[in-house]
Amino acid sequence: MVAVERNRSAERIERDIETLAGPAYTLSDEAIRRYAYTDVYRNTLDYFTRELRELGFEVSEDPVGTLVARNRPTGEKVFGIGSHCDSNRNGGKYDGTMGVVTALEVCRLNEERGLGLPLQLISFLEEEGSGFGQMLLGSRIVAQRVTEEELKDSFRSLDDGRSFWEHAAEAGYEPARWRECIHILDDLTGWVEMHIEQARVLQDTGNRIGIVTAIAGYVHADVFFHGRADHAGATPMDFRLDPGPVLAECILELERLARAAGKGTVGTVGEIEVHPSLINAIPERIRCSLDIRGVDEEAFRGVASAMADFAAAAAERRGLTAEYRRRQTLPATPLDERIVAALEEAAKETGEPYMPMASGAAHDTMCVADQIPCAMVFVPCKDGISHSPHEDADPADAALAAEIILNAIRSLQPAAHVRAGRPPA
Amino acid sequence: MVAVERNRSAERIERDIETLAGPAYTLSDEAIRRYAYTDVYRNTLDYFTRELRELGFEVSEDPVGTLVARNRPTGEKVFGIGSHCDSNRNGGKYDGTMGVVTALEVCRLNEERGLGLPLQLISFLEEEGSGFGQMLLGSRIVAQRVTEEELKDSFRSLDDGRSFWEHAAEAGYEPARWRECIHILDDLTGWVEMHIEQARVLQDTGNRIGIVTAIAGYVHADVFFHGRADHAGATPMDFRLDPGPVLAECILELERLARAAGKGTVGTVGEIEVHPSLINAIPERIRCSLDIRGVDEEAFRGVASAMADFAAAAAERRGLTAEYRRRQTLPATPLDERIVAALEEAAKETGEPYMPMASGAAHDTMCVADQIPCAMVFVPCKDGISHSPHEDADPADAALAAEIILNAIRSLQPAAHVRAGRPPA
Repeated sequence: MVAVERNRSAERIERDIETLAGPAYTLSDEAIRRYAYTDVYRNTLDYFTRELRELGFEVSEDPVGTLVARNRPTGEKVFGIGSHCDSNRNGGKYDGTMGVVTALEVCRLNEERGLGLPLQLISFLEEEGSGFGQMLLGSRIVAQRVTEEELKDSFRSLDDGRSFWEHAAEAGYEPARWRECIHILDDLTGWVEMHIEQARVLQDTGNRIGIVTAIAGYVHADVFFHGRADHAGATPMDFRLDPGPVLAECILELERLARAAGKGTVGTVGEIEVHPSLINAIPERIRCSLDIRGVDEEAFRGVASAMADFAAAAAERRGLTAEYRRRQTLPATPLDERIVAALEEAAKETGEPYMPMASGAAHDTMCVADQIPCAMVFVPCKDGISHSPHEDADPADAALAAEIILNAIRSLQPAAHVRAGRPPA
Repeated sequence: MVAVERNRSAERIERDIETLAGPAYTLSDEAIRRYAYTDVYRNTLDYFTRELRELGFEVSEDPVGTLVARNRPTGEKVFGIGSHCDSNRNGGKYDGTMGVVTALEVCRLNEERGLGLPLQLISFLEEEGSGFGQMLLGSRIVAQRVTEEELKDSFRSLDDGRSFWEHAAEAGYEPARWRECIHILDDLTGWVEMHIEQARVLQDTGNRIGIVTAIAGYVHADVFFHGRADHAGATPMDFRLDPGPVLAECILELERLARAAGKGTVGTVGEIEVHPSLINAIPERIRCSLDIRGVDEEAFRGVASAMADFAAAAAERRGLTAEYRRRQTLPATPLDERIVAALEEAAKETGEPYMPMASGAAHDTMCVADQIPCAMVFVPCKDGISHSPHEDADPADAALAAEIILNAIRSLQPAAHVRAGRPPA
């Protein structure tokens, strides 16, 4: 294992993060607001380009603007690291950007220590969807999970309504060549993305590092409960068709089912809409949303399907009806066991507290995990707050992550891929 | 008992109702929309005035516009009947108006049959609050349950923002004499108001008449559940402070408590507001409204107070907090046992199905019940629908109510009050 000077790494990471929180890198004074084809996004790519060129990396952008930097010529095998550097419209300094900055630190350490690891840094375009309302857009283009029609027509700027295609061309890219974006994965033997956790598990359990074993899939759905609007004062309890108690039973059943399913399955009712919403009227109908996630397909899909059945039966028991409508679903993404094991081994060596965990949130890594072996590393963020200017994370944890990623990649490299770099600084 | 030709009564009631649904009597083509100091309201008072003068009644209006018609000079004892003839802004033909029309029919039958009963018809002003947003306004003025400041300043027209005072004066009334309105009750020995039920109990139980024994009081309140907003996917079940399940437990507990309290106690959650209301976020906080009513003070107030305790305890069990805030409350109004018994007796004599029941909705009768002995009679309305152009009720049921009210008043009259009228037609 290579021991690194973590304080020095933490200082460099902090400097990068703070620089990229400066006025040249955000459209807003009150939050980080940075998305594709804006000047501040261009400045951010330029910053990484300069830093990486100084390390001897060859830097380019794919036909729509995903940044790619490598220390080996095309055709030679490399190990991928990175994340995204766009932000939520009302974002913080760490979501995405800290992952790219930490990948940059891995590249620095590799050069400084003369490790000779073959690396490729990627900063995906438009993970947050702030520009065109499309989450994971850059990595979906790389994975060919979009259509030309969408790029040309459906995906439109939230600012001016013009198409993604038009904006990309105007920024000097060649959207017509979007199918070639997949080639940025051609030489990768693996991929590790570092990201802030965006939840509170690491903080609340006192762990500094999370080794992500899988990214949760989800079912998003709505349940509509149809009752009968009656006068709240004049209608005795036995004469009601009140959807409220059916909703209540479903909320409690979702909680019970998610806990019973285990394996990290979670279920949430985030939206409740009551019609007509008057203090003195029994509701005619209620809609609630369901967000059900997990890394075990059978477990979380089982909860969704049991909820559909339960809602119908609970409504029927009270003489009402319930209607379950799925909005969308995405399968769970298991991550590569070999890379996960290498990261765990490297984490153990540091002597710092870490834990294996699932990612409940979506990440670019989901889109490329069926093309190349992938893994992720999480660091804590304060109180789990993310997508907010109050987002906070510790550069020292990112430095620890850089050390772990560096050592894991090192342990995974066939000797033939490694070659002498510069002598250690 | 006086048996009346119910078909003839039903025809007259229907004619009155349909006349008052004509274009001269409503501001809207699509609903009945009629409120104080509009031309259509003036026309409605004029209609009743003409019909009652034809029967030999002396008709006047109190200093703000409540209609009073009597067949005895001031100072002689009379029995009160009536309701209100203003409507909800999106109202139907029956709410209020059918009660005044049925009272008019009682006056007609009294004259036709030469019964010589001393009667006073009242049509209260602004029961619905369509003009100034103040429910039961006319009867509250009669009962002196308003302040001069409110009439002069706080109560303002929903249409033009000018004060009640200004509108009343402009319509030719003398609002400065509002304190004299209470004198319309001076000679009353009792009061019966007929009204559509505005719920479905009579329809669903196959009864044509409800004898109201009490008007429910209520507690209106809100409960605020304070949790913690976290990512719905990334936050394991054990790391949540989700207010949703606490809300659910409270909805079910309210239902359980209301049923357990019995005595017609009802409890309703009509409004639920979730913040931030995103499918993928655990709610930070939820507000729900409580509408708890009943005719037994101890029972319905007990439910409200038990709910406040339960919400706090249920929240605490899950590490959250709940805050109960009362909006307003009104005591229950027991009705006069002697008049109720006379109505029941008269109903029994008709051989038609009737039931004693509570009124869950508020009525003008609530405001005068501590001044004079009061009772109410309900007739069914289709599917309980009210405050809607779809409101529907059967004139034949109103005719039956007229017969019952007539006979009840007759049975309650001391012989000294009755005098020969015209000979039977």
